[in-house]
This record gives sequence, C-alpha cells and structure tokens, in this order.
Amino acid sequence: MQLIHTKNKLRTFVREARAQGKTIGFVPTMGYLHAGHGSLIQTARKQNDVVVVSVFVNPTQFGPNEDLSAYPRDAERDLALMRTHGADVAFFPNVEEIYPAGFTTYVEVQGPMTATLCGRSRPGHFRGVATVVTKLFHMAAPDRAYFGQKDAQQVAVIQQMTRDLDFDLQIVVCPTLREPDGLAMSSRNVYLSTAERAQAPTISKALFEAEAMIQKGERTVAAVSQHIQKKLQTMPGAAIDYISIVDARTLADLETLHSTVLIAVAVKLGRTRLIDNIRVDVS
Amino acid sequence: MQLIHTKNKLRTFVREARAQGKTIGFVPTMGYLHAGHGSLIQTARKQNDVVVVSVFVNPTQFGPNEDLSAYPRDAERDLALMRTHGADVAFFPNVEEIYPAGFTTYVEVQGPMTATLCGRSRPGHFRGVATVVTKLFHMAAPDRAYFGQKDAQQVAVIQQMTRDLDFDLQIVVCPTLREPDGLAMSSRNVYLSTAERAQAPTISKALFEAEAMIQKGERTVAAVSQHIQKKLQTMPGAAIDYISIVDARTLADLETLHSTVLIAVAVKLGRTRLIDNIRVDVS
Repeated sequence: MQLIHTKNKLRTFVREARAQGKTIGFVPTMGYLHAGHGSLIQTARKQNDVVVVSVFVNPTQFGPNEDLSAYPRDAERDLALMRTHGADVAFFPNVEEIYPAGFTTYVEVQGPMTATLCGRSRPGHFRGVATVVTKLFHMAAPDRAYFGQKDAQQVAVIQQMTRDLDFDLQIVVCPTLREPDGLAMSSRNVYLSTAERAQAPTISKALFEAEAMIQKGERTVAAVSQHIQKKLQTMPGAAIDYISIVDARTLADLETLHSTVLIAVAVKLGRTRLIDNIRVDVS
Repeated sequence: MQLIHTKNKLRTFVREARAQGKTIGFVPTMGYLHAGHGSLIQTARKQNDVVVVSVFVNPTQFGPNEDLSAYPRDAERDLALMRTHGADVAFFPNVEEIYPAGFTTYVEVQGPMTATLCGRSRPGHFRGVATVVTKLFHMAAPDRAYFGQKDAQQVAVIQQMTRDLDFDLQIVVCPTLREPDGLAMSSRNVYLSTAERAQAPTISKALFEAEAMIQKGERTVAAVSQHIQKKLQTMPGAAIDYISIVDARTLADLETLHSTVLIAVAVKLGRTRLIDNIRVDVS
C-alpha cells in the first residue's frame, strides 16, 4: 500500500493506473476508521482493480461551534485497517493541500434536500461536503465511489450532485454497520460516556420499531413519528434534533407513506450528536 | 466531423478516444461562431489529437432581463466553420439534456472576482458560467480547454475554478480577434445598427490609448480611467457600465499600476452591451 500526501502524487498514480486500463474504486473518509469503513473498502476491493482511500477531516463541512478540532484521529490505526482490507493507496492530504490560500470556489446542492434534516442544524455542512467530494473526485478520478448509508442525507446530496454535474462515475451505497446492540457504527461514538453509550442503542431500537409499525400496516407519518419521539424521550439527557420521515431519493416531506421512505433521526446525547436512519420499502 | 446531441454519445466518443491514448481539446461556445472562435478551434487542432466543440446557449448565465431568447443562432454556419477549422465533434445539446427536471446543483466562485466588472450588472452570470463549464468539462473530459481573452473575467473565473476544484486539465487562453477597425469580434456585434456599428470602434481605441499612456509612463489608475471615460463619452447614445483597471489575475482593484493589469470596459450602445479589454504589462 502506498501512502500519498499530495494531489500531484495521487494524480501520477491514478494516471498510470488508467493508462494500464485499470478501474479505480475510491473511498473518501474523515478517518478514525471503523468496520463500516472497512466494509466500504472491501466492496471497492471486489469491484475495482485499484482502491484509493482518502482520510481528510474537511474543515468546510464543520460549523463554527462544531467538533472540528476535537474530531478523533488515529492515522496509524487507519493505515492498519486500510492494509487489512486491501487498499492500494492511502491518501492523507493536509488542509493546505486541499484548501490553499485564495481558495474561493464552492459546489452547492440547493433546495429542500440540503435545507432539511441535518441541513437545518448544520448550515453550510453539505456545501462543504459537495465541495470537498468534487475536489477529491477530480483528484482520484474513480470509476466508482463508496459511501455508507449511515449518512443518508450525504448520500442523497452526493447522488444529486453526481447526476447534476455529470460526473462520469458510479456512486455505490453500502449498508450501515451496527454494533451488536444495534448502535450504528460512527467515529463519533468514541465521544460517548459509559452512561451515554448504554443509552445510545435506543436510537436504532426506535427506528426498528418504526419499521415494524409500517410493516404491520401503519401508513400515517405522524403516528410513526410520534412513536419514535416517545421512544427517544425515554433516554435521559437526550435532546432530539429531528425525526424525519421523507422520500428516500428527494428527501421531500411525505403526508402518507409510499414507495421507499427514509426514516432519519438526529439526537444529541450529552455533547455528542448521533444520527441514524433506515430505509423502508412501503409495499 | 460527428454531430452529437446527447451527453451519452459524447461520453462514448470521448471514452473511445481516451482508450486509444488520444488527447482531447475542447472549445465550449454559445454558437454564432466568428473568426475568434475559429482561432480557438485552430489552436485546439494544433495541440490535441481530437477536437470537440460545443454549442450551447446556457440559460443559467443569462439574467431575467437579458438577451437569452434573442441570442443569435445559426447552426448550419457554425457547423461549416467547425468543419473548416478541423473539429472532430460538434456537440449541440438541448436545454433538457443539460438541465433536466430537478436540476439543483451550482458551482460558484465567490468573492470580489465575480462581484466586480460584469458581475456587478449581471448577478448570477458567473455562477451559470462556472456550473455549465463544470458540466461540459465532465462530459468532454478534455486535456485542454480553450477560451478567448475577449471574455477576460470569464477567463479569470474559469482559471480560479479549475485551480480550486482540481480539474485535471489545462486552460488555454487565446488572444481577442478584432475587426479591421479594432472592434473586438463578438456574436453580439450582429445586434448593432449601422450607426452603432460605426461608433463601436471607439471602445477599442479608448483601450489602446490607455495602453499607450501607460507605456509612456502613466501609473495613476484615475488618470487612465478618466482618459477612457472621456473617449467613451464621445459616443452618442452610449452608456458606460464600467471602466475597470484591475490586477489581471485576481481582478482586485489597484491604486497604482504594477505587474500585469487588466483594463476592461463594458458599454451599452443602444440596446447592445459590448465588452472589451486589454492586458498591459507594467514594467
């Protein structure tokens, strides 16, 4: 596995691979990798000749009062996990490499898709995501790029951006990986105190119960939403940011449940903001 | 020469060319081609194995009160000029091909570079330019893309965007072509009445006189600007939009003249808005 820090070296690697007719799978991450990232790398490994994994904690997607400086990092462990899963390139650029002095161009998916859910409490977040992903796509020139369903709104935004801006690549979405008690794997889980960690699985339990309600025939958004709310309110010290039941592709609000819906929640547990979601096919 | 209307067919062509190791030169235009466009195609022809020319009158770069519907078109003449200069592909997409229903992603170069000069009287114009150029770059996947110095601010914005978003291609800027009397060639010159056309060369004369003043030692922005203003005011019925003397790369305002400056003007002559500019090396 090659460790690369500059975009010029990444480009050289990518050009050589392309000249040899090799396909490139790309897994962009913010590091502090867990088994969920591992599954993205494994899937990329199966589907491509070459696998590039990037680790970059992207400042433009953090708000002024968010956890940019505290975001967990462990490059050694990340490199070990990448090696285990068969990555060919570990791309670790620094902030100046991605945002040199004078940088001033942004990519923005406008409209309800970025204004709802996490977009409401994190203004500018998805602009930062779309911008850095555009840059990384141009550097890694992948045939396929891999994202986790855990960040459902990010997935929807990147799919929309890829369609709208005609990127010549395929977005591959991989299922959320969960701890044995159901908690969605996340780099931010490390922030949780022991007491908070014990409470956290309530979030996924609420989602699974909502799914079961729908499978038993419930079609009213309000009823499902209220059930989730009651469940989340059983967590002491938890503040609900949102409970959203929306069209899975457009993230538009629904009045009644039909086709494929996304049930997404964000909860602040102490100082840690956790998100989770499930997609439910409403037949 | 192949005539292509869809992005999928363009992609197929481009992928085959790339697989054969061919380089691609790309000339994006809004059609109604003149000798200035011809020189872009000729330069692309010399520097690349394959030349793609696009014609698309991009609605997102026109303001609500601008000349989108009246913008001159002549596809047959454009095709003939492309053939004459040796283009391999003429790409003529329609609006639905470029902006399908639900389109909502924009690329924006922020800051003074897009707020000054034409950006002041054409809000949103450069957002439209940056967005469509990003899309066309993704479709044509060029090694080199060709733009005319006539649209100096557009050139600066596209160069900034290309750097900032890490497009893996080279922007080639070609000199402004002029009519024998000095008027910068433009598709919009066709709008001019005979009387207006007779006045129009005053614009380039004002710029050349300004250049001469600087070459003779003038270093004060205000003095050069005032000279241009007096000259332009000799045109009956002309309304000056702006006279800007700025840093050629950043388009930032200057107090005294140094390094390479851009002298750019926009004048409304009757109902037609004309722009012109010169770059002057201040030694």
